[in-house]
Amino acid sequence: MSKQIRVGLVGYQFMGKAHSHAYRDASMFFDLPVTPVMQVLCGLGDEELRKAGAQYGWAEVEPDWRRLVERPDIDLIDICTPNFTHAEIAKEAIAHGKHVLCEKPLATSAALSREMLTAAQRAGISHMISHNYRFAPAVQLARQLIASGRLGEIRHIRATYLQDWIVDPNHPMVWRFKKELAGSGALGDLAAHSVDLARFLVGEITEVTGTLKTYIKERPVAGAASPDQRDTVTVDDQAIFLARFENGALGTFEATRLAAGNRNGNRFEINGSNGSVRWDMENMNYLHVFFQDDPVGLQGWRAIQVTEPVHPYAGNWWPAGHIIGYEHTFVHVVVEMLKGIHEGRAPTPNFEDGHRNQLVLEAVEQSDATGSWVKVPNF
Amino acid sequence: MSKQIRVGLVGYQFMGKAHSHAYRDASMFFDLPVTPVMQVLCGLGDEELRKAGAQYGWAEVEPDWRRLVERPDIDLIDICTPNFTHAEIAKEAIAHGKHVLCEKPLATSAALSREMLTAAQRAGISHMISHNYRFAPAVQLARQLIASGRLGEIRHIRATYLQDWIVDPNHPMVWRFKKELAGSGALGDLAAHSVDLARFLVGEITEVTGTLKTYIKERPVAGAASPDQRDTVTVDDQAIFLARFENGALGTFEATRLAAGNRNGNRFEINGSNGSVRWDMENMNYLHVFFQDDPVGLQGWRAIQVTEPVHPYAGNWWPAGHIIGYEHTFVHVVVEMLKGIHEGRAPTPNFEDGHRNQLVLEAVEQSDATGSWVKVPNF
Amino acid sequence: MSKQIRVGLVGYQFMGKAHSHAYRDASMFFDLPVTPVMQVLCGLGDEELRKAGAQYGWAEVEPDWRRLVERPDIDLIDICTPNFTHAEIAKEAIAHGKHVLCEKPLATSAALSREMLTAAQRAGISHMISHNYRFAPAVQLARQLIASGRLGEIRHIRATYLQDWIVDPNHPMVWRFKKELAGSGALGDLAAHSVDLARFLVGEITEVTGTLKTYIKERPVAGAASPDQRDTVTVDDQAIFLARFENGALGTFEATRLAAGNRNGNRFEINGSNGSVRWDMENMNYLHVFFQDDPVGLQGWRAIQVTEPVHPYAGNWWPAGHIIGYEHTFVHVVVEMLKGIHEGRAPTPNFEDGHRNQLVLEAVEQSDATGSWVKVPNF
Amino acid sequence: MSKQIRVGLVGYQFMGKAHSHAYRDASMFFDLPVTPVMQVLCGLGDEELRKAGAQYGWAEVEPDWRRLVERPDIDLIDICTPNFTHAEIAKEAIAHGKHVLCEKPLATSAALSREMLTAAQRAGISHMISHNYRFAPAVQLARQLIASGRLGEIRHIRATYLQDWIVDPNHPMVWRFKKELAGSGALGDLAAHSVDLARFLVGEITEVTGTLKTYIKERPVAGAASPDQRDTVTVDDQAIFLARFENGALGTFEATRLAAGNRNGNRFEINGSNGSVRWDMENMNYLHVFFQDDPVGLQGWRAIQVTEPVHPYAGNWWPAGHIIGYEHTFVHVVVEMLKGIHEGRAPTPNFEDGHRNQLVLEAVEQSDATGSWVKVPNF
Repeated sequence: MSKQIRVGLVGYQFMGKAHSHAYRDASMFFDLPVTPVMQVLCGLGDEELRKAGAQYGWAEVEPDWRRLVERPDIDLIDICTPNFTHAEIAKEAIAHGKHVLCEKPLATSAALSREMLTAAQRAGISHMISHNYRFAPAVQLARQLIASGRLGEIRHIRATYLQDWIVDPNHPMVWRFKKELAGSGALGDLAAHSVDLARFLVGEITEVTGTLKTYIKERPVAGAASPDQRDTVTVDDQAIFLARFENGALGTFEATRLAAGNRNGNRFEINGSNGSVRWDMENMNYLHVFFQDDPVGLQGWRAIQVTEPVHPYAGNWWPAGHIIGYEHTFVHVVVEMLKGIHEGRAPTPNFEDGHRNQLVLEAVEQSDATGSWVKVPNF
Repeated sequence: MSKQIRVGLVGYQFMGKAHSHAYRDASMFFDLPVTPVMQVLCGLGDEELRKAGAQYGWAEVEPDWRRLVERPDIDLIDICTPNFTHAEIAKEAIAHGKHVLCEKPLATSAALSREMLTAAQRAGISHMISHNYRFAPAVQLARQLIASGRLGEIRHIRATYLQDWIVDPNHPMVWRFKKELAGSGALGDLAAHSVDLARFLVGEITEVTGTLKTYIKERPVAGAASPDQRDTVTVDDQAIFLARFENGALGTFEATRLAAGNRNGNRFEINGSNGSVRWDMENMNYLHVFFQDDPVGLQGWRAIQVTEPVHPYAGNWWPAGHIIGYEHTFVHVVVEMLKGIHEGRAPTPNFEDGHRNQLVLEAVEQSDATGSWVKVPNF
Repeated sequence: MSKQIRVGLVGYQFMGKAHSHAYRDASMFFDLPVTPVMQVLCGLGDEELRKAGAQYGWAEVEPDWRRLVERPDIDLIDICTPNFTHAEIAKEAIAHGKHVLCEKPLATSAALSREMLTAAQRAGISHMISHNYRFAPAVQLARQLIASGRLGEIRHIRATYLQDWIVDPNHPMVWRFKKELAGSGALGDLAAHSVDLARFLVGEITEVTGTLKTYIKERPVAGAASPDQRDTVTVDDQAIFLARFENGALGTFEATRLAAGNRNGNRFEINGSNGSVRWDMENMNYLHVFFQDDPVGLQGWRAIQVTEPVHPYAGNWWPAGHIIGYEHTFVHVVVEMLKGIHEGRAPTPNFEDGHRNQLVLEAVEQSDATGSWVKVPNF
Repeated sequence: MSKQIRVGLVGYQFMGKAHSHAYRDASMFFDLPVTPVMQVLCGLGDEELRKAGAQYGWAEVEPDWRRLVERPDIDLIDICTPNFTHAEIAKEAIAHGKHVLCEKPLATSAALSREMLTAAQRAGISHMISHNYRFAPAVQLARQLIASGRLGEIRHIRATYLQDWIVDPNHPMVWRFKKELAGSGALGDLAAHSVDLARFLVGEITEVTGTLKTYIKERPVAGAASPDQRDTVTVDDQAIFLARFENGALGTFEATRLAAGNRNGNRFEINGSNGSVRWDMENMNYLHVFFQDDPVGLQGWRAIQVTEPVHPYAGNWWPAGHIIGYEHTFVHVVVEMLKGIHEGRAPTPNFEDGHRNQLVLEAVEQSDATGSWVKVPNF
């Protein structure tokens, strides 16, 4: 039997649930080199924690993350807490020699993400950031096409991540709307994903110019006695920016939570000298591909359903034509994490990716302040 | 200067307008071997006729089609009148040695369409039926792919023509709802188009089984004093049937005027042993093509925008990417008609196609009566 | 703690895997009234069975289904074996008082499915047939719209289930191509799903006419010494038929395994007097809806992403906009099965649905033989 | 009979052909308050000019535009020549009291477009710029929805105009690739359209930041003796920019001629506080609309086929469901121009729109030079 990797997961809301499920499915659908053991679920709120632990299938629960990271029997700490806590938990976990899988964004500032990266590299542990959208089979296929040169020289990317869950001005205040807790708004929450996809598919971003905007500046306090009790939103509702890439490509980016009709519109189109790809998370099983060298008269965008045995990850699931969903991307994250641990390396994407992502986001924020193009630092 | 073909057009409603425009555009966008002259517009209603003649650009108007077909200066009679008049006008025109372009369906019965075909063949004139949808560039491309064997052995066609303009039970009675005037309802009006496309793309239909249905059996008399004054609908609202083709393929067909949300849903998908095509009139500039021999992992439906110079008819219009519309199909009909006259042959599709189409439709009607498969007669 | 339901599952291939996963996910994502215990996985092939049992999470394995159904500790038998074995296993399980969940088609003949239904009803156990596609949230939403009268009087359904996995004539022989093992081909495998959706959404089918066809009549024997060793296909590659419904609606149906480009094209459109719905399993998270009473000029097909908390089943998964996949439909099947057991009733769809489905399929087969419309028996 | 407006059209290539056809169709499909007379076609190349004149239906041809604008019998000068000639021809025409319809961009610099506007206003003639895409019925419907407040406060626009006709580096040099002849590349040719749509639908742009890029810096000389003879491209292949609007909205813009697979991808999405619209020129008959106030659970993007009698311009063409094409937008331009002349006003969009558009484009060019946000001057 393969070596066991005992997991402690911190946070049991949306991401905690997605990661928990990923460990369950990973062992059923993939031949893993190591065996994940769902040992400890950690989080606040005794009753809810116990309930979540039982429902998600964790052996134990533990309310104190500091006690968790000290446990010698735990190999991997998985961080699914609000953004402002990532750095502290990760650094403590690393200090105790744990491997770390961390939700995005890595931290609320590049200063913090740099510390996390440095610590992780020095400790030699396996570190990973959960940019799950990379792991949609269609995105992996896009990567294969680009990396193999099939699309030629890459010149353009236009990436949008459009949501609409806070169009209603009476959507109550949550931690995501506070700069000190979230770092930023649509920028860190959504554009971070687009930047990761762009780095994965096009390459490093060297320079950006952009702007942020908060349209709805106050929101009702959740559970307040009076509906008039309002609190100030201190993060952006929308972020837009232009980017120059190391390889000469140009990109346009937009992230917003106010684009009515876009529930989860994580999309991109990339154009190269020999072809193009399009992807939309809301129809994530398809990659649309255009080959410039198809015969004249028979050229057209191909809707490739990325569910075939030859496609990345797809063969582990169902026969061709049987689509997978959002949560499967997390299963692939976990598979990559466990492989990284087994092979004694950092998986991809890792803390360096998380930190470089943060550098881009901060450059956008600076650009918003200065009104000029800002170079993305190299470290 | 090329030889002039003097045209007399009968009927100035929807189809008369479409054909009138086709003569205007044909001479502007195509290098024609003969020059169409818009000489006489013929129809009922003095004032409306004069107005239509002036607006459409006809040199003269003439209320009596019998006088029109007797005129020695007229070369081509174009018939755009209600279905029940096609046979009589066409036969008289042929008797006077005119070339004839006739709207579909050719006649209200196969007995009549047989007479028309025989008369036309004996007279040696150029005869054509205006199955305009064949002439969408995307349909022509489909034909090229199939005829060249690129899709292999053709096995399946599913063709639907779905409209919804009479979902409202208070839509008033019109001639199209009377068997003696229209021949049939959705069957002759809509399925006739699908049958033509099927014959063009797949081949001859040898046997059918089907049924017709009238859901809304009475409709208000148009312009009646009382809204309660109602008249009986004597044609089908919907026709469905199965078909066997000479080449072994099977087909399913549906035509209806009650499919809410389908304004003009003339669609088909054809599957062969080496690939497939899909088309939808409402997005008529695209042909969706699947090639079974594309590399595994890169197979997918290609959305080919059939607007390139290499595509049939497309190069006569605008640069690639600039789409055309419904009316352009009639321009292509007229171009084919004029070429046929110039070359002394019947264009395609001609009265034989119209008659064979009618034979299929009548077989469906018989099948509706008998409840069994009915062989389509050979003549 | 809620009552435990101890499950024994027979078969561990495609369906066995899907059902196994469904039990795992059901308990994580749904508050179940009873607790499923994955007790015994049953199937042929010692080594593969053991491996599957461990990987899917079953407590024990058992190679003999007869011993399994005799075990007093087992409450529910889940049948995921080839079609020809369903009846025998189900009847034995019922004889031992077990609840039964059976994959579709219920049996290879209506005579057998009638026996199964009668036995199940007499025994008073909870019986269910795994028509999983009913359980896509978008299909459930379609049902709500229709059942509430929102679409008016239902008049048309066109349902297709198009696959292409055996377009290659060298695809080897499998049990699915043998009448004695599978019952039928595309008819029982694919059209059975369409018939179930039609019965769920439109109502009972009273009469059918149709035909079956086998295009590729021989296939290579799997693993044979010589590639020339071929075996005869005794089931249909394609089935097409027309249907009359109790409520007056008409339907067209097609199932095929030779429609190149259609990996899993389970689709329908339904038109009523006040609106329409469209669905496609390959984009299963969307229901396209047209409301005839939307304001004139603003009417159009709405692409409803059925992932909102208010949508059937969707709220148990992820926030709006985060799509689910094929396998989730089985989770919903299991949830309904467990609820049925808890409430002492047959879930829906149950053996009666399976039997009525079989009656329709057999009527199609008879119609293929006689060439006429065949009435679907009432029992 | 209504007053005649005698037209002299300069240029008979792509745009000259489109405008010629527009005059032909306008009088057939619209009840015009004045009657356009296709009097003189003007352009270089005797033989080609004569041929075009005859084919397009002009009464006369004239090689010298200066002689044309001096003719007292001509009422309207329509300018379809390369960009660098617009200003001179327009100013001379205005000086002779002619009404002027001018292709876009109005001029190659804002200095010139300002002169044109001033001259036109002083002369009191009717002046119009041919931003034809405004006149797609679907765009007009978008305008109605926004202007009526139906979509609430407008916050975002993302507009792209993606073409791919020069992806091939061996596409020969044409006047469009020379700054002195074209003014700019993708910016003036394509982004000009997006800016016009944005101004029409969202409002005035006050500030921009952007960049331009030329990827393929040399191209073969057309018809050169040696394929190695190359000339330098002095305009942009791609332009990207961000924009702030007077009403607080933010926009992202991209225009490129190198986006493989995009033949004519003129697209936008606009989001307001109460809904959104999407449009794509390649499927120009549809407007996709999302209403935030649709009932929860039934919200979705509606694909409105803008072909109904109640829709702008659509009722002049064919019955609902019969789509129109690219060229129809020019017919609507001509209809608006003729109405403007009849009513003694400048049509919309006019030279002021053309000039303001030019101001935005120049601000983008400045921003490309300075790397900062640039305010768009008010005049």
